[in-house]
This record gives sequence, structure tokens and C-alpha cells, in this order.
Amino acid sequence: MDLQFLGTSSGVPTKARNVSATAVIEASGKGWYLVDCGEGTQHQLLRTPLSMRDLRAIFITHVHGDHCYGLPGLLASAGMSGRSEPLELVMPLALHDWVRQTLAVSQTYLPFALHLHAVETLTHWRSGQVEVSTRELSHRVPSYAFVFAELNPEPRLDIDKLQADGIPRGPLWGELAHGQAVEHGGRRIEAREYLRPSRPARRIIVCGDNDSPQLLADVAKGADVLVHEATYTEAVLARSQSSFGHSTAAAVARFAEAAGVPNLVLTHFSARYQDNPQRSPSISDVREEAMAHYSGQLTLARDLQRYHLDREGVLVPV
Amino acid sequence: MDLQFLGTSSGVPTKARNVSATAVIEASGKGWYLVDCGEGTQHQLLRTPLSMRDLRAIFITHVHGDHCYGLPGLLASAGMSGRSEPLELVMPLALHDWVRQTLAVSQTYLPFALHLHAVETLTHWRSGQVEVSTRELSHRVPSYAFVFAELNPEPRLDIDKLQADGIPRGPLWGELAHGQAVEHGGRRIEAREYLRPSRPARRIIVCGDNDSPQLLADVAKGADVLVHEATYTEAVLARSQSSFGHSTAAAVARFAEAAGVPNLVLTHFSARYQDNPQRSPSISDVREEAMAHYSGQLTLARDLQRYHLDREGVLVPV
Repeated sequence: MDLQFLGTSSGVPTKARNVSATAVIEASGKGWYLVDCGEGTQHQLLRTPLSMRDLRAIFITHVHGDHCYGLPGLLASAGMSGRSEPLELVMPLALHDWVRQTLAVSQTYLPFALHLHAVETLTHWRSGQVEVSTRELSHRVPSYAFVFAELNPEPRLDIDKLQADGIPRGPLWGELAHGQAVEHGGRRIEAREYLRPSRPARRIIVCGDNDSPQLLADVAKGADVLVHEATYTEAVLARSQSSFGHSTAAAVARFAEAAGVPNLVLTHFSARYQDNPQRSPSISDVREEAMAHYSGQLTLARDLQRYHLDREGVLVPV
Repeated sequence: MDLQFLGTSSGVPTKARNVSATAVIEASGKGWYLVDCGEGTQHQLLRTPLSMRDLRAIFITHVHGDHCYGLPGLLASAGMSGRSEPLELVMPLALHDWVRQTLAVSQTYLPFALHLHAVETLTHWRSGQVEVSTRELSHRVPSYAFVFAELNPEPRLDIDKLQADGIPRGPLWGELAHGQAVEHGGRRIEAREYLRPSRPARRIIVCGDNDSPQLLADVAKGADVLVHEATYTEAVLARSQSSFGHSTAAAVARFAEAAGVPNLVLTHFSARYQDNPQRSPSISDVREEAMAHYSGQLTLARDLQRYHLDREGVLVPV
């Protein structure tokens, strides 16, 4: 699976960083998933190879505008680009009416169906390639993490079982290997009965805003990648009146270290952190603070950067 | 007065052009007005010197998303940047509830008041420097033009009247010249009683989507600048099923020529027109079509380009 960041700024866009949106891309094929959709997400997509036709589902972590205001425009543009496949949306219930009303008031008629699911009550969602589960976080409003787990990664035929069940070697095996159901001995045989993953399923956790990383303790065990906000450094937070329900780089790094997460990706940086390391506070302060507490593979997300989770479980920029 | 274009594409953003938004900037001071606010308008503003604190009012021409979806994000960011002055919004009544509901559902609390006016019933709106009147256009939904007229441009003291009324030359004249009220002979004297415009007021018309330019016939007389959509060329329209309520470059150019408008600015181009003149159809096709019918100063708006209406009434890029 790949990740591509479409927005990595907290609250407001800057010249270098848009507000929140993250693409999770399937290992095989072109299908992808969008987590959050801040204003201008569709503009960012114009600068990637991702197509609105291959978007399988959108997941919104919470109701704040920097995580959802781009949704109506993205849907409208998907309609104008000719998408006809239904689109799945998993989001807070309060946003369901808002999306429908926004489209209605602007007289926007989509040529595809929206299938809306309430994140509050959904425990699992699956497409052909991934299963997504949710985890409630802690923020000023209800906020969620989405855990993307591959389904049956790189499946291979279970030869022993095929032979034991008397399925003859030949074209039937080929069709099953390609995931197609076959007829044999008068009965229909589903491919999934004979396909087994050839490697462990990868898991990527993409979080909404959260001031309590420890809420992820159980799902973080065995996860390959944790994408978590690091809105502030401790030095900046100490001068602020409140964390506003956000985490510091240090807190997230300490959590990821304790949980043994091999790849930590920080995002959702306060706009005060300058990309120019000569200016203070700078994004290098965030990196230094996290590195002091975390010994794994640390990444500070950058807009439009794509990362590949390779077979060895290492996250590398591509 | 100056104009700065923040979005010049129709319907969907492209890499080079955002969806609709136009800034009208006062001749003196830093105050400005925004006409339409497509998604990503706040992002475009980051690339201009325009400040959200100096924004006096927003005018929305019609309910389509490419003209208003940027409004909630722009308001939220204005709040986060510390604006405290009330903000005036003139827009279709249907958008009033939508703006309020969008801010409410996203739990966005603005530190400034919104003063909402329905464009359908408003005939005139004025600030200290401009008077804005409306004109109904013809589109798939109700759509409006906004006519910006300077109030009392470059005012000078009416010396004859000051002397006739016995106001003594000296500090009182200075205060009145600066627009301040003074006390004299036991009564309060308002500066406007003694200030007269030293040149004709300039008028700029900024239109919403419109398939009938002739609806502007009376307001266009004596206007300095007409900003009008030219979504298609005639050649492209001939191959389409419908104009979708839009104008061609030729139709707008013919109207502007007949009305004697000295400066015509075309905008809201279909995304099919390429900026590269080697590709077809290209934005040069739009220019050529308009030039064939219009002998005044023709401008094809470009994103982020600022134009100054000089003392001779010529619109020049700055």
C-alpha cells in the first residue's frame, strides 16, 4: 500500500501546505481511499496521478472544517468528470445532512449515488482489497482513526487443499488463481476457498485530530504505519493557553516508541512552523522533538509526497 | 479602483485557473470587496497582498458551487487570523441558511459578526468608498451582476461654499479636507457638506453567469469596465447540446461594442480551453473570437493578475 499526502497543515492552509487530506492507495490496481477532505483537496489531486474514477471511498475523521469543507466541491467535480460508480462515504452523522443540503442548495446533481455510513456506528467497512475499522480518539469533537488492513494480500493457490478436494490441475486452477469462481463436479467453487495470503497483511492507521495517542495502544500493536497529528511541539504548547485537543510531537513519538510501531508519520502541523529551518519555530523543531523520543522510521509528511510501504515493511518516499 | 482575479475557470479548477472569485480594490486605502468565492479562494488570497482584515464585503452572484463553496473556509480562516470587524455578505437568500448551518455543523465560531443581505431584494449597498447596485441576469438559476461605483472620488474642499458660509480658513478647513466633522459657531459641521468629487466616479460591473449580456444595456452605458463570463467560443458551443445558460466570447464582445464599454474583461473560461496556444481549443481562440467583434481594450483575465483602472479610464496590468 502507498500513502500520498494532499494536505498536512492544521486549521488553515499555507503556501506550502494545504489542510488535511490523505490518500491510501491499494497495493495492486489503481483503487484508492481518501481520509479527510479539507478545502482544496480536489485542487491537490490535479497534481497527482490519482483519478476520481478510481476513488473507492471517503472517510472523514471529524466535523471540523479543515477536514471536510472540500467534500462538496470534490463530489461536484467528480460528477462533472463523468464518474458513474456509486461512492461510499464514511463520516460523522452530522455531515450526512450537510453534504446533501450543500449539494441541494447549489443545485448540484451528481451522476452517481452516494452511500453514506455513520462513522459513529460503523465498526468495519470493506472493499475487495482492504478492510477498514475505526477507533474513537479524543478531541474537542468526536474524532476517529481509520485502520486500513489488506485483505488476503498477494493470494496464492492452496495446492494441498486443491489436491485433497480433487480439483484437477489445469484451467480450473488458473481461473481460481485469478479470483474467478469455477464449476466442478456439479457445484460452484469460490476462489477465496483456495486462495491464501502469501505474506502478512499490512496495516496502516490514519488518525483524525487526537490529544490521547494511548487510545491507539491495542490497534497500534503489529501495525506497519501510524499516521498521526503533531500539531505542536512541547515548547510551543507550553506558551499556549490550551492544546485545543491536539498532540505534541513528543507525546506521539513516545507513544509510537512504546507501542513498537516501525513507521511513524507526523502531519497536521500548526501553520506557525516554517519550512525554512532558519526561521523559528520551524518544522525541524518538530522533527528534532520527535526523534528524541522515537527510534523507528520517522517521516514528517509533506504535501503531494507519496510513500510506498515495501515488502520489508519500510516506508520509503517514491 | 483595481481588480484582482482569484479564479477564472468555469465549473472546475484547473492547474492554472481556480474557480470564480474577483477582488475589487478601493482606489485609496486598502479596503476591498470580493465577488464570488469558489473553493480555494482563501488559498489564492495567500498569493496576493490582500488581507482578510481589510475585506469590507462579499458579494455572491448565484448559488452554484464553483461560486460559493469557498465561503465557509474563508470565513473560518478570517476568524483564525483574528478579524473582529463585522463582515457584510450580499448573497442569494438560499445561501444564508447554508452558511450558518455549515459553520454550525463544523462547530466553527467566528469572532466577528456576519451581516447577511439577500441579493434578491437589495437594490443598493454602500461602504464609505463605493456604492454597489445589483442587476438581475439570465442563467439556469437566478444570477446577478454587481455594479461598483466610487462615492465622491478624490474629494476636494468646496472653497466657495466654505467662504460663503463663513467657515474661517485654517485648521477647520484641514480637518474637513480629511473627512472629519468639526464644530463651528456652536454647530457640528459634517465634512461631506464641503467635499466635492474632483473627477467623475468610476464604475466597474462584475457579472455572475449570464447568457443574455443585453440585460446589462442600461448599466453598461458610461461604465468603465465590464467583467463578464465567456465560457465558450461559438465553435465549441455549436458542438454542444446546450449553452447551459452561459455566453460566448462573441456574444459578449458584440454587446460591449454596441454599449460602448471602453474596457471588457472576459473570465470564467471552460476548462477545455488550454493556456498552451499549440493545443486546441486554446484560450487564444477565445481572444480571437472576442477581438473580431470588439474594438475597445480587451483583457482575458488570468488568475492572480491585478489590473489598475487609471485616471484616463484605461485598465492596465500592474
